[in-house]
Amino acid sequence: MAKSAISPKRSENYANWYQEVIKAAELADHAPVRGCMMIKPWGYAIWERMVRVLDDRFKEMGNQNIYLPLFIPLSYFQKEADQVAGFAKECAVVTHHRLKESDGGLEPDGKLEEPLVVRPTSEPLFGDYFAKCVQSHRDLPVRVNQWANVVRWEMRTRMFLRTSEFLWQEGHTAHASKSEAIAEAKAMQGVYEWFSQEVLSIPVMCGEKTENERFGGAETTYTIEAMMQDGKALQSATSHFLGQNFSKAFEISYQDKDNHISHVYTTSWGSTTRFIGALIMTHADDDGLRLPPKIAPYQVVILPIIHQEEDKEAIMLFVEQIKSKLQALRYDDEKIRIHIDNRDMRGGDKAWSWFKKGVPLRIEVGKREAESQKISIVKRTDAYRDRCSLEVDELGQVVGFLDQIQNTLLEDAKSYRDENTCHLNTKEEVEAYFKNDKKMRGFVIAPFCGAKEIESEWCKANGISARCILPGDKTGACILTGSPAPFVVFARAY
Amino acid sequence: MAKSAISPKRSENYANWYQEVIKAAELADHAPVRGCMMIKPWGYAIWERMVRVLDDRFKEMGNQNIYLPLFIPLSYFQKEADQVAGFAKECAVVTHHRLKESDGGLEPDGKLEEPLVVRPTSEPLFGDYFAKCVQSHRDLPVRVNQWANVVRWEMRTRMFLRTSEFLWQEGHTAHASKSEAIAEAKAMQGVYEWFSQEVLSIPVMCGEKTENERFGGAETTYTIEAMMQDGKALQSATSHFLGQNFSKAFEISYQDKDNHISHVYTTSWGSTTRFIGALIMTHADDDGLRLPPKIAPYQVVILPIIHQEEDKEAIMLFVEQIKSKLQALRYDDEKIRIHIDNRDMRGGDKAWSWFKKGVPLRIEVGKREAESQKISIVKRTDAYRDRCSLEVDELGQVVGFLDQIQNTLLEDAKSYRDENTCHLNTKEEVEAYFKNDKKMRGFVIAPFCGAKEIESEWCKANGISARCILPGDKTGACILTGSPAPFVVFARAY
Repeated sequence: MAKSAISPKRSENYANWYQEVIKAAELADHAPVRGCMMIKPWGYAIWERMVRVLDDRFKEMGNQNIYLPLFIPLSYFQKEADQVAGFAKECAVVTHHRLKESDGGLEPDGKLEEPLVVRPTSEPLFGDYFAKCVQSHRDLPVRVNQWANVVRWEMRTRMFLRTSEFLWQEGHTAHASKSEAIAEAKAMQGVYEWFSQEVLSIPVMCGEKTENERFGGAETTYTIEAMMQDGKALQSATSHFLGQNFSKAFEISYQDKDNHISHVYTTSWGSTTRFIGALIMTHADDDGLRLPPKIAPYQVVILPIIHQEEDKEAIMLFVEQIKSKLQALRYDDEKIRIHIDNRDMRGGDKAWSWFKKGVPLRIEVGKREAESQKISIVKRTDAYRDRCSLEVDELGQVVGFLDQIQNTLLEDAKSYRDENTCHLNTKEEVEAYFKNDKKMRGFVIAPFCGAKEIESEWCKANGISARCILPGDKTGACILTGSPAPFVVFARAY
Repeated sequence: MAKSAISPKRSENYANWYQEVIKAAELADHAPVRGCMMIKPWGYAIWERMVRVLDDRFKEMGNQNIYLPLFIPLSYFQKEADQVAGFAKECAVVTHHRLKESDGGLEPDGKLEEPLVVRPTSEPLFGDYFAKCVQSHRDLPVRVNQWANVVRWEMRTRMFLRTSEFLWQEGHTAHASKSEAIAEAKAMQGVYEWFSQEVLSIPVMCGEKTENERFGGAETTYTIEAMMQDGKALQSATSHFLGQNFSKAFEISYQDKDNHISHVYTTSWGSTTRFIGALIMTHADDDGLRLPPKIAPYQVVILPIIHQEEDKEAIMLFVEQIKSKLQALRYDDEKIRIHIDNRDMRGGDKAWSWFKKGVPLRIEVGKREAESQKISIVKRTDAYRDRCSLEVDELGQVVGFLDQIQNTLLEDAKSYRDENTCHLNTKEEVEAYFKNDKKMRGFVIAPFCGAKEIESEWCKANGISARCILPGDKTGACILTGSPAPFVVFARAY
């Protein structure tokens, strides 16, 4: 078996493999603050692409961006009871506004009258924002979104998947009617589904959360659930219909056409840097990351390989020729993102660094290529040494290559998920399936009535959770109660 | 005198006028957190344009974006002594990691072993980042930038100019040689100068800070200083040459070609949401904001004015025709940003709302325009009712109009500044100039030696500060010591 760039391999130690991919692809590093990470240039460039693509789509759908404060006064934080219950146990609290010298160095000084919570979510401040800007039915709907950092004091952290601080967006909308708000929440689930599948090549199961798994304060939570390569589920984004819970807690009301005062219906929807974790755990292999072209910061890297100074001019001339041909091409409605790596290092190290970073296409240009005017190109989805050769005039094929890679990654992930998903009809079968703790286990689809108390206890005992209720009218006999029930996806989860 | 949209006028009460412009242009609102603001869609859209333009330029110059944690452990914060002195008196401190129920509601719980400072700047974490990624001379230079929120517990706050939390970017670079680092810090000052003058139409004085006004930990601080309409100076962005102060405090060293270990030279440079305050205070008038086209989220708004339902079809048809003509045009290397305002409200209210928001060009399309196929267009730099009329085929002139507005704003601001700048040669003249506290006072240029102790005391007594040392070899006799000295800009300042 060939040596791989990442050690351990997925099959040897999945958790450590994940950390090593992050290191090898130079995505992030541990920070000197507990549970936080430093997102490095390549990791952040991926996030910037995600932001750009999602933000464009949000704006097309009528959302505008705003920015609300980092701090939430304790009294505001307490307004919606279910939210408090969800976040009080893991939030950072600011209690002082300066530092003073003491014997042992600096210490907090200037105690605040009211402690401030570092936002674990900005729901309370959006509530305040809506209360101020909604007066009349003419002001509705309101659609606003925020890109920001949030803090949740998680006990067990893992880079990109669960960190004390993470980057995210949270969108909030307010509507006059319940049906319009529900349609909006579903539409945003649709955006996340599209983004995950079409842009990130990550297939997802879409549905509603059971009551037990619902977001604090939500009436319905819509989710997208992806399967990682260890069979576990990753909740990748959620969209909530909040009913009038927040509008009543924050007094968001308006005068309708008949001069009646009514509370609005609100939604909220969010996605985070966790999407980067999902990318890694879906597409990376034992040689590092593999990036779908639509999200790759660079889609093509060109590596000049110069062994002797006298060859340099001819090689660089050919590199420029290739670059200008590529610049004329378009993929996914944009110019192709090209990078020429002129670093002063060994060709092999250079090539491997981009292979580990997951760049979709690599073009190596050495003396031989410059002389023959032929291009040697490698797809990240092929093996490291699987080159194919193109004439300069055939460079237009690069667009097709990118499309192939985008699709291959999606199809591979889909096959993997489908192979590891099974339909079971009894409690015993489901328990037996998840029993062997060592073995890779995927998704189980089984009829389940969604009763909160039963779910919580039974799932905990089996180390699993209900990921989502699949849409559709089909029912079966609930594996726990026997009553007619919809089909639910169960899995171990992140 | 005609009634203005903003009350009070600039001449009546400048500080209140500023707040009212922010309100009328719907840029931001006070938040329920002391000294913080909620940035509303129009204000945030301006910030997004600023980010896009600056970020593109930073990247062209070889910078990459990263993201470092919000929190800085107290022990890290203390590593560079001058920095601590600068920020310890105004920083938010996190001391607890959860909340618990008590009689009076929630209270902080779970005391942290080491308090965390909410970043007032990320210098210490960039120090840590550089220490990790710089090993060899081949790793240099490193150029990284971060867009993030920072917190400084300011006692007197004012929206966009000085808020407890603000948005900013901080770039940091590390170099092998001192001269390269100095050149980099100057080049970044050049970027800010370009951005301010060419994009924001805000003329600036560029120079070095005196020792007294230098950033904590910097060897040289390069600044750009703008004059607001009340004659006060606004420091709009700074770039610092940090020498080896940070590299020694954070042990950022590398092995050079001869295998010697050396400390790197670093720079840092930053700009903030304060630029929005500068825009308002430079260009807004008694009718609200005026935006330079290069930074305006929309450059042209089209307002369909429909009095009778039967006219709607013809009007909307003409609107679409205008839109598609405009979409074919380019200004500043980009498509023109157009918005059609279909809100259901009175035409006059609609037009005034965009006038107050400062959109450069407004096109009103009513029955008369649709019938005559003539376009009625108003520049924000002209009076509200100063229309000019164009045939559809003449719409290409819009590009020229935008350019005119961009230049008019810059030229007007330049004239204003120059009219309010004077050269004085003695201490007495300078003191007399600034003495009348009621009267608008601008910039004074006078020879000054820059001695720290003298400057601090004398400036304080006169309610002014040294804004920057102007570049060039010209010297005069220092107004305080009489020794040969460069020319320094003095002003009251924000």
